[in-house]
Amino acid sequence: MEKFKTLEIVQKSAKSSVFHLYLNRPSQRNALSPDFFSEFPKALSSLDQSPDVSVVVLTGAGRHFCAGIDLKSLNSSSEPSLSGDRGRGGERLRRHIKALQDSVTAIERCRKPVIASIDGACIGGGIDIVTACDIRFCTKDAFFSVKEVDLAITADLGTLQRLPSIVGYGNAMELALTGRRFSGPEAKQLGLVSGVFGSGQEMDEGVRIVAEGIASKSPLAVIGTKAVLLRSRDLNLEQGLDYVATWNSSMLFSDDLTEAVSAQIQKRKPVFAKL
Amino acid sequence: MEKFKTLEIVQKSAKSSVFHLYLNRPSQRNALSPDFFSEFPKALSSLDQSPDVSVVVLTGAGRHFCAGIDLKSLNSSSEPSLSGDRGRGGERLRRHIKALQDSVTAIERCRKPVIASIDGACIGGGIDIVTACDIRFCTKDAFFSVKEVDLAITADLGTLQRLPSIVGYGNAMELALTGRRFSGPEAKQLGLVSGVFGSGQEMDEGVRIVAEGIASKSPLAVIGTKAVLLRSRDLNLEQGLDYVATWNSSMLFSDDLTEAVSAQIQKRKPVFAKL
Amino acid sequence: MEKFKTLEIVQKSAKSSVFHLYLNRPSQRNALSPDFFSEFPKALSSLDQSPDVSVVVLTGAGRHFCAGIDLKSLNSSSEPSLSGDRGRGGERLRRHIKALQDSVTAIERCRKPVIASIDGACIGGGIDIVTACDIRFCTKDAFFSVKEVDLAITADLGTLQRLPSIVGYGNAMELALTGRRFSGPEAKQLGLVSGVFGSGQEMDEGVRIVAEGIASKSPLAVIGTKAVLLRSRDLNLEQGLDYVATWNSSMLFSDDLTEAVSAQIQKRKPVFAKL
Amino acid sequence: MEKFKTLEIVQKSAKSSVFHLYLNRPSQRNALSPDFFSEFPKALSSLDQSPDVSVVVLTGAGRHFCAGIDLKSLNSSSEPSLSGDRGRGGERLRRHIKALQDSVTAIERCRKPVIASIDGACIGGGIDIVTACDIRFCTKDAFFSVKEVDLAITADLGTLQRLPSIVGYGNAMELALTGRRFSGPEAKQLGLVSGVFGSGQEMDEGVRIVAEGIASKSPLAVIGTKAVLLRSRDLNLEQGLDYVATWNSSMLFSDDLTEAVSAQIQKRKPVFAKL
Amino acid sequence: MEKFKTLEIVQKSAKSSVFHLYLNRPSQRNALSPDFFSEFPKALSSLDQSPDVSVVVLTGAGRHFCAGIDLKSLNSSSEPSLSGDRGRGGERLRRHIKALQDSVTAIERCRKPVIASIDGACIGGGIDIVTACDIRFCTKDAFFSVKEVDLAITADLGTLQRLPSIVGYGNAMELALTGRRFSGPEAKQLGLVSGVFGSGQEMDEGVRIVAEGIASKSPLAVIGTKAVLLRSRDLNLEQGLDYVATWNSSMLFSDDLTEAVSAQIQKRKPVFAKL
Amino acid sequence: MEKFKTLEIVQKSAKSSVFHLYLNRPSQRNALSPDFFSEFPKALSSLDQSPDVSVVVLTGAGRHFCAGIDLKSLNSSSEPSLSGDRGRGGERLRRHIKALQDSVTAIERCRKPVIASIDGACIGGGIDIVTACDIRFCTKDAFFSVKEVDLAITADLGTLQRLPSIVGYGNAMELALTGRRFSGPEAKQLGLVSGVFGSGQEMDEGVRIVAEGIASKSPLAVIGTKAVLLRSRDLNLEQGLDYVATWNSSMLFSDDLTEAVSAQIQKRKPVFAKL
Repeated sequence: MEKFKTLEIVQKSAKSSVFHLYLNRPSQRNALSPDFFSEFPKALSSLDQSPDVSVVVLTGAGRHFCAGIDLKSLNSSSEPSLSGDRGRGGERLRRHIKALQDSVTAIERCRKPVIASIDGACIGGGIDIVTACDIRFCTKDAFFSVKEVDLAITADLGTLQRLPSIVGYGNAMELALTGRRFSGPEAKQLGLVSGVFGSGQEMDEGVRIVAEGIASKSPLAVIGTKAVLLRSRDLNLEQGLDYVATWNSSMLFSDDLTEAVSAQIQKRKPVFAKL
Repeated sequence: MEKFKTLEIVQKSAKSSVFHLYLNRPSQRNALSPDFFSEFPKALSSLDQSPDVSVVVLTGAGRHFCAGIDLKSLNSSSEPSLSGDRGRGGERLRRHIKALQDSVTAIERCRKPVIASIDGACIGGGIDIVTACDIRFCTKDAFFSVKEVDLAITADLGTLQRLPSIVGYGNAMELALTGRRFSGPEAKQLGLVSGVFGSGQEMDEGVRIVAEGIASKSPLAVIGTKAVLLRSRDLNLEQGLDYVATWNSSMLFSDDLTEAVSAQIQKRKPVFAKL
Repeated sequence: MEKFKTLEIVQKSAKSSVFHLYLNRPSQRNALSPDFFSEFPKALSSLDQSPDVSVVVLTGAGRHFCAGIDLKSLNSSSEPSLSGDRGRGGERLRRHIKALQDSVTAIERCRKPVIASIDGACIGGGIDIVTACDIRFCTKDAFFSVKEVDLAITADLGTLQRLPSIVGYGNAMELALTGRRFSGPEAKQLGLVSGVFGSGQEMDEGVRIVAEGIASKSPLAVIGTKAVLLRSRDLNLEQGLDYVATWNSSMLFSDDLTEAVSAQIQKRKPVFAKL
Repeated sequence: MEKFKTLEIVQKSAKSSVFHLYLNRPSQRNALSPDFFSEFPKALSSLDQSPDVSVVVLTGAGRHFCAGIDLKSLNSSSEPSLSGDRGRGGERLRRHIKALQDSVTAIERCRKPVIASIDGACIGGGIDIVTACDIRFCTKDAFFSVKEVDLAITADLGTLQRLPSIVGYGNAMELALTGRRFSGPEAKQLGLVSGVFGSGQEMDEGVRIVAEGIASKSPLAVIGTKAVLLRSRDLNLEQGLDYVATWNSSMLFSDDLTEAVSAQIQKRKPVFAKL
Repeated sequence: MEKFKTLEIVQKSAKSSVFHLYLNRPSQRNALSPDFFSEFPKALSSLDQSPDVSVVVLTGAGRHFCAGIDLKSLNSSSEPSLSGDRGRGGERLRRHIKALQDSVTAIERCRKPVIASIDGACIGGGIDIVTACDIRFCTKDAFFSVKEVDLAITADLGTLQRLPSIVGYGNAMELALTGRRFSGPEAKQLGLVSGVFGSGQEMDEGVRIVAEGIASKSPLAVIGTKAVLLRSRDLNLEQGLDYVATWNSSMLFSDDLTEAVSAQIQKRKPVFAKL
Repeated sequence: MEKFKTLEIVQKSAKSSVFHLYLNRPSQRNALSPDFFSEFPKALSSLDQSPDVSVVVLTGAGRHFCAGIDLKSLNSSSEPSLSGDRGRGGERLRRHIKALQDSVTAIERCRKPVIASIDGACIGGGIDIVTACDIRFCTKDAFFSVKEVDLAITADLGTLQRLPSIVGYGNAMELALTGRRFSGPEAKQLGLVSGVFGSGQEMDEGVRIVAEGIASKSPLAVIGTKAVLLRSRDLNLEQGLDYVATWNSSMLFSDDLTEAVSAQIQKRKPVFAKL
C-alpha cells in the first residue's frame, strides 16, 4: 500500500482482510488539512481495489478521532476567492467545496464497508466523515459536535445531507443549530453509533470482532448490501425494489451462494473467494 | 374466506372486524415457500375487499413468526436460471424476484392496517414481511436477524428499502451488514416495533386492544391515514401536502365526520358504517 | 410589532433578539381558529423580516400548547362545500385546505429558527404545528396525540408528511393510526422533542438558554443551516451536496466568518451584525 | 389464445411472431366498454407470456381506431358513487379510476413492443391508449382529439401524464385545453406518430415491415430497450445510467450477443431463440 | 378590476369571460420594471379569483410583447447587494431573485389558462414569462431571444427550467448558449408557439377564437386539466396517475359533467356555471 | 496540450479560444476503442481547466464522425466476465460499463460548451457521445443509427437516458427499437441537431461562427447556463428556480456583468477576462 502524509494504512494481522485506515496527524488532533483531502480518496480507492481487503476500519491516531477542518484548508481557498472578481471567486470557491465534498464521498464510492471507530473528539469535519461511513462505534469518552455554526459556517461537507437519515430530522436540526457537544452514550441513543465501548481498548477489540465477522461473509453479498442500501436511499420504494431485483438477476447465483448453502448443509464455516 | 395451504384466516370473535392472518406452516417455522408467495396476495386481497374486515393482524402459527425464505423457493427459481442462456436466465430470475417482491408488497396494497404480532424467530424474509406491515409488536423473547448476508444474498424482498425509514439509515446498514441477531427489547429501542410484551399471551391481548381500537374508528379516516402516509413517503413535502389536500377534498366531508362530531357532542361512542 | 387576536409577540428582554410568539387563546386551550390561520403567517413574516429578531420561541399561553383545530375552522369551510355542486365544492375545499397548510408552512418560510416550547396538551393541529418547527422541547407533563383519526379525519395539515422524518416511519404510522396519547418523556424517546423539563418554569429557563445560544451565533450561518437542511430533505444526496456548495460559494466568506475566526484567535466572544 | 368480447388476437402468418390485437367493437367505433377494461390486460398478459409473440400491433377493427370511453363505463361507476356517503363514494370512484388506468398501463407492463396502427378516429380514451404504446403510426385520414375537456372531464387515463414527454409540454397543454381535432400529418409533425401512410392498406404493409423488423432482432435486446427507456423516464440521469449498467451486467453476455456477432462476421442474418 | 401602472386589464366584450392582460409600458417596449414585478401577481390573482373570468390573454401594448428586464430592476437590487458584507449581500440578492421568480410563477398559480399573444420582440424576461404561460401564439413578425447570456447573466427567471420541456432539451441549450434571435415561424417549428399568424390583427382574431372556445367549456375541467398537467410535470408516471385519480374522485361527478352529457344527448351547446 | 492515441486537440487559430477535439482513428471510422475511453475524459478535463479554452468543438477526423463502439472494447471486458463465477463476472461487468459511461459523461463535467460537428456515420456509441454534447450540427450527408439493438445489446452508454429529452420520448423509442438509419435532415426535424449544412466545409464554417459567437460572450454566463440547464434537468420546477437563484446570488454581480452593461451603453463589443 502507498504511503501518505496524513493517513496510514495498517493490516494488523497478515491473515486478516480487515484493514485499518488511520487519520494520522495526532499532534493536530487529526485536523483535516489540504493534504488530507487529496490523499483520502486515493487511500480508499486503493483499499477498494485490493482483493486482500474486505473491510476498512477508519480511526484516528492518538487520543482523538478528528478535530475538524484545518483552518488552513479554508485559508488556502479563501485567498483567491476573496480577491478579484466576485463572480469568478464564487465559481472557484464552489468548485473547491465540491472537491472537498468529493473527497469525503470517497467513503461511499468504496464498495467495501467502512467502519468508523471513534474515540475523543469528533468535531465539525469529523462528523462529515463519520456520517459517510457505513457503521460507527465510539467510546463512552468520545464527544461530538456539529461545530460549523460556531465558525459562522453552514456545514458543507455532507453532515446536513447525511445526518438526518441517521438520527432523524429533528435531532439533526437541533444538533446543527446549537453546535452543542454530545457524548458517546447520547450518540448511541440518537442512533449515530451502533455501540459504545468502555475504553479505546475495548472498542478496538469490539470493532475487530464486528469487522472480522463481516470479513468472513460473502464479499459479493456484503458489497451488494452496501450498494443497494446507498442506491435505495435516493429511489422511491418501487424503484428500489426494481433495482435490487435487477442487481440480483446478475449477482444472486454466484459461487458464494453455492458455498454458503453447502456450508450450511455441512454445518461448517463457508470459505469465499476474494473479490 | 378462502382456504389456503400456507395461511389461515381467523375471525376470533364474530362481533369483531379484526381478522387474524396466520403464517401457517408451524413445523417449518413458517418458512416462506413458493405456495406462500402465491397465496399471500390472494389472502390480503380478500381481506381488503371484505366489508367485514377493518384491521388485519399478521402472526405466525406456533412458536415462531417466520424463519425466512424456504430454500425451495430459491431452488425452484434457480434451476431454470442457472442452465441455458445467461441473458435469458437473468431475465427470468429478475421477473421471479419481482413476483416475490410483489407478493410482500400486497401488505401495502391492502387498504386496511396490517399489524404484525411477532413471537420467536423473525428472520430474513420475515423481516421483509414485517417491515411492510403498518405496525409491529413483539414479545421479549422474539428475535430478529437480517440474515440474507449469511446466505451470500443481497436481501431483495424489501428490507433494504423499508428498514432505513423505520430504524434510521445507520442502524439499517449495521443490521444488514452484520446479520446479527437482536432481541425484542432492542427492536423496540430501534423503533422497529411499537411495543414489547412479556409473553405471547400478553401480546395477544395487547395487540387485540390496539387492533380493536383502530377497528372502532372511522374506516375512511383509517385507510386515508395509511394511504397518505405511504404515498407521502415517496413525495417531497410540497407534493405530499398537495396530495392530502386533494384526497380530503374528496373524502373529508363524509358521513363518518358527521357521526364523529355528533358522537363527540353527545359524548357517546361513534358508530361508523362498514367500508 | 403588530397586534393580533389569536397571537401575541413578546420580547422578554430588550437586549435579547429572542422573541416569543404565543398562541394566545388560553380559554380555548389555544385551539386553532380561522383567525389564527390568517394571523399566523403574518406574525411569522414580520418576525422573519425584523432585523431585531434572531430566534422565535413558539409557545402556548396558559396551561396548554394547543388543543387542535377549532371545529369552527372546519365548519366555516364545510358549509359552502357541502351544499351545491359536488365538483365545485371539492375544488373550494381543496383550496381551503391548502390555505390552512400554507399557514402552518409559514414556520418553514421564516428564515430564522422557530423553537416549540410545549406544556400541557399538544393535540391534532398542535402536532401539525410543532412538526413544522425546527426544534421542540416539552415538559414531563406535556401530552401529545395525532388525534385527527378520532374525528374521522385524515390529518391534512402536515403531520403525515413531517412526522415520519422526525420519529421514523414506523412510529409515525402507529401514532397516526391509533391516535393514542403519549407523554413528554415518550416524545423525547421517539425523537419528537430534544429535551424534557421537569416543569414549565424549568422549560422556560432551559429553552431560553438554547435560544440565546443560537441567537449569539452568526445569523448568516444559522439561517443557512436551517435553509440547507430544509432544502436537502427533498433532494438526493448528490443534489444536496451540490446545493450547499453553491450556497456557500455565495455566503461562506462573510464578515461573520472573519469575525468568528478573529474571536476564536483572540479567545473572545464574537459579535455579529444583525441580518 | 383466449377469446374476448371486445378484442381479437390475430396471427396473420403462421411463420410470423408479430401478433395483431384488434379493438373489436367496430359498430361502436371501438368505444371502450367496461368489458374492454377487464379484457385488455388479460390479452396483453397472454401476448407477453407467449414465447411465440415478439411484437404486438394494436389496431382498431373497422374504419376507426377508437371513439373514446363508452359512456356506459362512466355510468356503471357513477351510480354507486353519486348516491350515499360522499366520502365513501369518492373512495370507490378513486379505486374505479385507478383500475381503468391500470388496464391501460398493461401496455407498458407487456415486455414486448406494442405498436399502435391508427386509422379514422382516435379520440379521448383512444389517446390514452396510444400514448401508452411504444410506437405509433397513422394514416393521413386519421384524426385525433384529447376530447375529455368537452365532456367536462379532466382526462384521467394517462394522456396528461404521457403526452407531454411525446409532443412537448406546450403542445400537450394546447391540445388538452382546446380538445381540438388534429390530423394524421399534424400528429407526425408533433412527434405523436412516427409515420403517416396514404391509406389503411399502405399502413398495414408499412407497419408490418417495421414490426417484422423488430421481430427479427434479439428479443432480449428488444425488451431490454423498452424496459430501460420506460424506467429511465422516471429516474435522473445518473440513476438511469446506473440502472442500465446493472441491467446489462445480467443480460449483456447472452447467446443473442454471440449469435449477433457471429452473424455479422459471417455476413448472414442472425437467428435468435424465442424468449 | 384594480388599476395598475405597468399593466392593464381589458374585457373586450361585456358578454365574454375572456380577459386581456396587457403589459402596458409600450414606450419602453414593455420592459419589466420593479413595479411590474409587484403588480403582475396581484393582477393575476384578481383575475384568478373573479368568477367572471374564464381565460386570460396576456399580450403587449404597442408593437412589442416585451423587451426583457428593465436594467433598473437589476440596479435597484444590485446596490444594496454589492456594497457591504459579501455574505449578507448574497443572501439579500438570493431573496430578491426568488421574489422576481415568484412574480413570474404567478402565471402558474392562476388556476385559469393564460394564453400569450406575441407580436414584435419577446426578449430575455419576455421568454421567462411566455414559457410560464399555458399556450402561446405569435405573428410571423415576432422575434425571440434568450438574451440573458449577452448581458453576462445566467437566465434566472424560469427560462432554463421551463423551456426544455417545451422545445426539447437540445434546442433549449442551443438557444440559451447562443442567445440568437429566432422568428415566429421557427418558434412554431420548435414547438414554442401553437400557431403563427400573418399579422397582429389576424392573431387577435385567432386567439380570440381559441380563448372563447376554452371559455365555453366546463371551467372545472379546464382548471383541472391545467392543474393536473402542471402537477404531473414533477411527478413520475405512477404518481401522476394516482394524483389525477384522487383529483377526479373529488371533482369528476360535477354539475358540469351532468350538463355536458345532457347537452350532448340533446345536441345543444352546454352552459356551465361560473367557477 | 497532451498527446493522445485516439484523439487530437487542435487550436485552429492562435487568437481563438475555440478548440477542436478530433476523434482520431479515421481508418477505423473513429470506432471507440478501450484507449478512447481512457483518453477522452483526460482530454476534456484538460480543455476544461485551460483558461485559453472557451468552447470545444467535437468532430471526427476523416469522413465519418464515429462508427460506434469497437468490438474490442466489448471483448476486453467480456473475457473476464464470461469465465468463472457468474456473480463476480456480473459485478466486474457492471463496473466496466459504468467506467465507459463515466468517460462519455465527461462531456457534461466539462464546464465549457461542447459542440458536436457530425459528418458521415454517427452510429451506436457515436449517438451516446453526441447526445451528451450541448449543441449538435451535421451535414446533409450525415447518417445516424441507434444501432445497439442490432448487435443484441440494450444501449448502455447514455442514449436511452439522454435521447428522449432531446427528440421526445416517442421518437426515442422508435429509433431505439428499430435501429433504423436516419439522415441529417431528419435529425434536424427531430430536434437532434440544431442545423444541417450542405457539406463538411460549410459545416466547418457554420460551426466556427456559432462557436466563436459563444466564445465572445461572458465565460461566467456561458458555464452558468450550461450548469443550470444540466442541473435543472433532474430537479423539479421549484427546486430548479431555487437553485438558479442561489447560483446567481454568488455569480450574478461579476466583472462580466459590469463589462457587458458598459459595453452596451457604449455600443461596443464587450471584452471578458478568461475563466
